[in-house]
Amino acid sequence: MPTHKIEPHLFVIMGATGDLMGRKLLPALLNLSARGTMPPGSLILGVAIETTFNDESFRKHCADELAASGVPGEEIGDSFVKGRLFYQGLPHSTPENYQALAARIETLEKDHHLSGNRIIYLALPPDAFPSAITGLGEAGLANSPGWTRLVIEKPFGHDLTSAQQLNILLHKNFDEEQVYRIDHFLGKETVQNILVFRFANSLFEPLWNRDRIESVEITVAETLGVEHRAKYYETAGALRDMVQNHLTQLLTLTAMEVPSAFDAESIRHEKAKVLQCMSPVPIEDAVFGQYDAGVIEGAAVCAYREEPGVASDSDAETFIALRMEINNWRWQGVPFLLRTGKRMKKRVSKIAISFRCPPILLFQAFGATCMNANTLVMTIQPDEGVDLKFEIKVPGEGVNLASRNLHFRYSEAFKPLPDAYETLLRDIMEGDTTLFVRDDWVEASWALYTPLLESQHGVHPYASGSWGPKEADGLLGDLEHGWIVE
Amino acid sequence: MPTHKIEPHLFVIMGATGDLMGRKLLPALLNLSARGTMPPGSLILGVAIETTFNDESFRKHCADELAASGVPGEEIGDSFVKGRLFYQGLPHSTPENYQALAARIETLEKDHHLSGNRIIYLALPPDAFPSAITGLGEAGLANSPGWTRLVIEKPFGHDLTSAQQLNILLHKNFDEEQVYRIDHFLGKETVQNILVFRFANSLFEPLWNRDRIESVEITVAETLGVEHRAKYYETAGALRDMVQNHLTQLLTLTAMEVPSAFDAESIRHEKAKVLQCMSPVPIEDAVFGQYDAGVIEGAAVCAYREEPGVASDSDAETFIALRMEINNWRWQGVPFLLRTGKRMKKRVSKIAISFRCPPILLFQAFGATCMNANTLVMTIQPDEGVDLKFEIKVPGEGVNLASRNLHFRYSEAFKPLPDAYETLLRDIMEGDTTLFVRDDWVEASWALYTPLLESQHGVHPYASGSWGPKEADGLLGDLEHGWIVE
Repeated sequence: MPTHKIEPHLFVIMGATGDLMGRKLLPALLNLSARGTMPPGSLILGVAIETTFNDESFRKHCADELAASGVPGEEIGDSFVKGRLFYQGLPHSTPENYQALAARIETLEKDHHLSGNRIIYLALPPDAFPSAITGLGEAGLANSPGWTRLVIEKPFGHDLTSAQQLNILLHKNFDEEQVYRIDHFLGKETVQNILVFRFANSLFEPLWNRDRIESVEITVAETLGVEHRAKYYETAGALRDMVQNHLTQLLTLTAMEVPSAFDAESIRHEKAKVLQCMSPVPIEDAVFGQYDAGVIEGAAVCAYREEPGVASDSDAETFIALRMEINNWRWQGVPFLLRTGKRMKKRVSKIAISFRCPPILLFQAFGATCMNANTLVMTIQPDEGVDLKFEIKVPGEGVNLASRNLHFRYSEAFKPLPDAYETLLRDIMEGDTTLFVRDDWVEASWALYTPLLESQHGVHPYASGSWGPKEADGLLGDLEHGWIVE
Repeated sequence: MPTHKIEPHLFVIMGATGDLMGRKLLPALLNLSARGTMPPGSLILGVAIETTFNDESFRKHCADELAASGVPGEEIGDSFVKGRLFYQGLPHSTPENYQALAARIETLEKDHHLSGNRIIYLALPPDAFPSAITGLGEAGLANSPGWTRLVIEKPFGHDLTSAQQLNILLHKNFDEEQVYRIDHFLGKETVQNILVFRFANSLFEPLWNRDRIESVEITVAETLGVEHRAKYYETAGALRDMVQNHLTQLLTLTAMEVPSAFDAESIRHEKAKVLQCMSPVPIEDAVFGQYDAGVIEGAAVCAYREEPGVASDSDAETFIALRMEINNWRWQGVPFLLRTGKRMKKRVSKIAISFRCPPILLFQAFGATCMNANTLVMTIQPDEGVDLKFEIKVPGEGVNLASRNLHFRYSEAFKPLPDAYETLLRDIMEGDTTLFVRDDWVEASWALYTPLLESQHGVHPYASGSWGPKEADGLLGDLEHGWIVE
């Protein structure tokens, strides 16, 4: 997050003809370039298996991709497309091809007077990570006359063992300090603000513990179904796709201790410590669900098992709810309820902190109950903001209480929020690892879910457009309130 | 505040041809009558020195007064004016006149089958209180076959001695349980909500003490000048007119301990306890001011000393600021800054709780300073609501903090707020003394200001339309923030 000077560099993208490039990387790079964040002289080298492209046709392709993603024609401009973009084919993962890539990089840097600062972005499917990492390492591309940073897209492994193996392979070729593991949730302004909210305000930190907080709920709900991702999703499911990364990130940011300084290692250290205080989640604390047919925003939608590419007896979970605990001084006994799903009633990501009821219900005679405990809700998306539910006297006769919100919306106070990828690419250029996932965190997170990943579990059907299977309510235990987010 | 059954009664108003009757009491009684809060069969007996009125002409007068105060003609209606209103002249404070009043009351009750429940409202100038109280007592009007409640308008005394004497006189004729001392601030919804806000929410009470709060500011600012009240104001001043009652009420509600129950005696007990823990305010902790000429909302206005009826060398204060302390376990060392004035920049009444700075300024490297401490502002009037100033990350590069508000406005959540007098009259009818000033509170409050009332002090001039004399800033001491309300 801190602002450092950005040095001119070569930004290499492996998988430059893929979906992520067109949708996210190109628009973000264009913006960073136009704003001068990406310094003049910096170049972008697209790398992909296609040998049919050359610099010229790749530039045309990129301009088309930008236009397709909604960028107005006049903003695409020659200075970006012609001035920055280059292409190198890498049809097979052979040492020769990586040598050719290395040679091209050196030529480009020499021709354009770059001093060897490099970002290598693996925008590749996960099964291509190992050969790319090895290929880059063996071709000497882990080091350069300047700095070299390696960016890895998610998913990082599919269980603890595969994540460990990937880390071993990475560390054989790169130093951990060079590695930027992407979780785009961390680039969202509202997620970055969790720490500012907690540690720049004196009001909340004294309340942020088991004495004052009854439960924490983290809900990330989508209305979309599996879309075109059936092949991946059939072997992944919601636990791998959403919980191990995004929801667990939100959990560690919400629960972490105050860092000793606001820098990358201090923050990442505290996040990892949270996971060290958690035990693997037993199967009885998880509820798996799969969407059935239903109605989303007025339109009938099919069941997951009827989606193209999905097995008719698939047990892939499109919903999962978990009850977790953090066994440290601050949080012991406070349930952390995580919930995510596709085809849910609303698209919404929220962290809801439910405070304990006042110790004395002074207004009980007037109908006040413990159901009206204070709740702090941080909305990650959409309609980003903060709501603090509090009790107020209803104007008029008697003492009738009502719950209302102290509320704040980003949209009322600030310009539209920047895209997460823009934030993350800028941080990579700056060499700031704060918002990236460290090796120990990713392994500890996978370890947490090992019992669930190894379990034989069925899935509870739920109607599309609902909040998931009713069995998830069982995780609430004796909490007087239900799920906060609805 | 609690809702009890209201019994049919006779509502006697002494001073029924005065300003308060037309502006406040009549509209409130009309509303309470129309809504059925004032039960069918209840009557209103106006009493005043005029002998020219009879029931008929008084009803006409009242209908005119209601119309003049903006009540639509169709709402005034015969059932209220002809069905409820009666008049009794009381030209001189003689035993005979009070006997005549007593006789009229008995006749009315007999004729209308009322069982003797009575409210006697002294809407009189303060110098008329003693003779009225004595007259009523000697005529046997302190007791009746039902209940009798005596309502006294402010000001209650003009210093400790006069307040004590008035209490002695009252208690000679009435029990304290019968006495309803009015402070119309207590009828405001936003003032009643202070206790609900504090004690129906678990969030704030743990922070509501010297460990977490740096200072409390209570500002009641008016834009009006002395208007037609010069005669009273020349001998009263802002300390008597505003501080001893309204601002000190806000202070005790803000500072009081949790009551053992939410009933009148428990709450009034805790309010009185706050004053017991305070020492008389020394002269060096007060700044007196008087408005000079200036500009209010674009219009030039004259100095106080140029107002009609004001002495050209008047030292009456139209502004006062105080720094006070409460020497109890909860508040020791926390400055309570009180400030009120006429011809100020804005008409606004607010309680601002300024929390201590975070113990560690984690974001100092990014420009965060202690100036941005969290602040909770309860707006009593106008634009009633609650604002919680907190720090947020400004979206975009770096870690830039900005202060924004979590906010709540009554106008967004509820219908227009009822008038304070309606609330207070309803509570009197119900026999609920919670929102009325108890004998011990009023004496303790006067005791607090005795050194100031007895001091020879000049007044610092301030421009109309400003926030008062700059000398008031000296009361802030080493607080890093200035006055919160502006």
